[in-house]
Amino acid sequence: MAKEKKSALKENKGVSISEITDPSTIKVLKKKRRSEINTEALVTSILNKDITALSRAITLVESKNPKHLEKANTIIKACLPYANKSIRIGITGVPGVGKSTFIETFGKHLTSKGKRIAVLAIDPSSSLTKGSILGDKTRMDDLVKDDNAFIRPSASGDSLGGVARKTREAIILCEAAGFDVIIIETVGVGQSETTVHSMVDFFLLLKLAGAGDELQGIKRGIIEMADAIAINKADGDNLKHAKLAKVEFNRALHLYPEKSSDWQPKVTICSALKNEGIDAIWELILDYIAITSKNNHFNAKRNEQNKFWLIQTIEEQLKSTFFNRPEVKTALENQLQLIKDNKTTPFAAADYLLSLEI
Amino acid sequence: MAKEKKSALKENKGVSISEITDPSTIKVLKKKRRSEINTEALVTSILNKDITALSRAITLVESKNPKHLEKANTIIKACLPYANKSIRIGITGVPGVGKSTFIETFGKHLTSKGKRIAVLAIDPSSSLTKGSILGDKTRMDDLVKDDNAFIRPSASGDSLGGVARKTREAIILCEAAGFDVIIIETVGVGQSETTVHSMVDFFLLLKLAGAGDELQGIKRGIIEMADAIAINKADGDNLKHAKLAKVEFNRALHLYPEKSSDWQPKVTICSALKNEGIDAIWELILDYIAITSKNNHFNAKRNEQNKFWLIQTIEEQLKSTFFNRPEVKTALENQLQLIKDNKTTPFAAADYLLSLEI
Repeated sequence: MAKEKKSALKENKGVSISEITDPSTIKVLKKKRRSEINTEALVTSILNKDITALSRAITLVESKNPKHLEKANTIIKACLPYANKSIRIGITGVPGVGKSTFIETFGKHLTSKGKRIAVLAIDPSSSLTKGSILGDKTRMDDLVKDDNAFIRPSASGDSLGGVARKTREAIILCEAAGFDVIIIETVGVGQSETTVHSMVDFFLLLKLAGAGDELQGIKRGIIEMADAIAINKADGDNLKHAKLAKVEFNRALHLYPEKSSDWQPKVTICSALKNEGIDAIWELILDYIAITSKNNHFNAKRNEQNKFWLIQTIEEQLKSTFFNRPEVKTALENQLQLIKDNKTTPFAAADYLLSLEI
Repeated sequence: MAKEKKSALKENKGVSISEITDPSTIKVLKKKRRSEINTEALVTSILNKDITALSRAITLVESKNPKHLEKANTIIKACLPYANKSIRIGITGVPGVGKSTFIETFGKHLTSKGKRIAVLAIDPSSSLTKGSILGDKTRMDDLVKDDNAFIRPSASGDSLGGVARKTREAIILCEAAGFDVIIIETVGVGQSETTVHSMVDFFLLLKLAGAGDELQGIKRGIIEMADAIAINKADGDNLKHAKLAKVEFNRALHLYPEKSSDWQPKVTICSALKNEGIDAIWELILDYIAITSKNNHFNAKRNEQNKFWLIQTIEEQLKSTFFNRPEVKTALENQLQLIKDNKTTPFAAADYLLSLEI
């Protein structure tokens, strides 16, 4: 050792060979290589209706790792020509209206008719509550076990825009995997109904009989978006109330301007628990699809939605890039104070902030 | 002459003296010098309640000439410490509801109480229709002649944002000129009510009795913004209907969530033509000011509005700068076609457009 130290030919100790030839390490490396994502194979599997492959692809879409997102984009692009062929249905309603039971009964009804259905969710709060919606799959016991159903909880994200993008991309993947009906559920936090409305063909609002608008906490504007209102829990003693509510909602709907789709929104009653009125809702959706396909509103709406998401994404990005610049953040605070002190106007302040050089 | 030409001391002929000593030219030059805007003097005149100076300043604000706008900004900045002291009232209602008559009667009522009032307008369509609103001042005959009233038609502009900015700046100038009440009228084209709502302290909706919502063409959401609803033309045979309508609107207002201001929106009936119920509306506005001043909602709302306009102006500018870039315009068309052809997604298209280098 002493000799070695003094030698002019001394070599620094290299990486221990044993470390690289360690059998367990080799196993790990091999495993890693196996798990390297082969996007082409994944796409093929998705197109072959392989649910595991679909799940993996959605996980890539939801990842925050840029490498995963790159792969996700490749997969989505490859799936696109096979997408766009489903019926996309949005479902909303306040907690307690029976959304999970409805989706379970409605979903089972569709699979019994040979349809393959996917259930996604938009829940901007899920990043905080760790997936309150659809997180508890046990609430859809039967549907979870159904081979023709695919249930995926809401993606989590910092912004509704982010969650929306992931869900829109998941729709494409589900469609490529051959699902006929995509159901998108929302609990209605913040702007989530508007978000769901702008990514579905048909928007269904679940209501209860006997509870006034203010009690149900339904936000204004939601009724305006609905293509149909289904009054749920219309069974037993509640049936009478539900029928009355139907008349009332029908009257309320007439106050709204006509839709461009030539579709007059319908009110219907149902009991998801007793499986009553569920088929009527599906028939109603099929009517809607038939009418709007004929007058080309169906495709026009999808094109409008695509354009909306394109513009929306760009605008969000422009804003966040601008307002997250550190010098803008500081200057914004100063300008707001100057406005408060009557020393500048909002417009002069805006001009100033926009003039800040990058 | 020939001698002169050959001389080495030849001088080039100067500018003819007669040209510069021409008496009429001198007059023109002097006039021009007089008309050079002295911003300092203009501000002093505005603060001295000089209406001519106020009009000239607003004209500068509305100008498209960058030099004028620079002067306008200087004037606004100098006026700012003297602004913010009026009550700003927004008034909307569909054509036929009697807005002009109402503003005339209401305005005369205020001037009779010693108030000085300014009437401005937001009409995004006025650039097309050459000022449909308030353009015909003869409809406010008495008010026009009133020394304590100042009436200014809507600024014209390419965008509602542009018109809004000019109006907001005109408010500052009017306030510096000592007007106690600023009335902002809108005909309700496009988003103009929302725009007016976000620049006033109190928002008054004029309605008629006996006409359903759909007949009156009132957009949803307007009622939600109203701090008071005045049912106009409540005279003669109409009085009974107006009283019924009052009950109905009161009921409707209860469906809306409570306002953060602790103010419960009021419904009142009036006849602008007969000058009935006008004072009650003014008392109601004074109540509102008293309550919201006490709970500090009044100032909080103005601060919120300022912040809104700051952010709004920046966002509009960011968008228009981006989407007006020629390479973006071209690429946007291409990307929209690719989306239609299922060759890209709105999100991938957005990423691509955002990646375009300046």
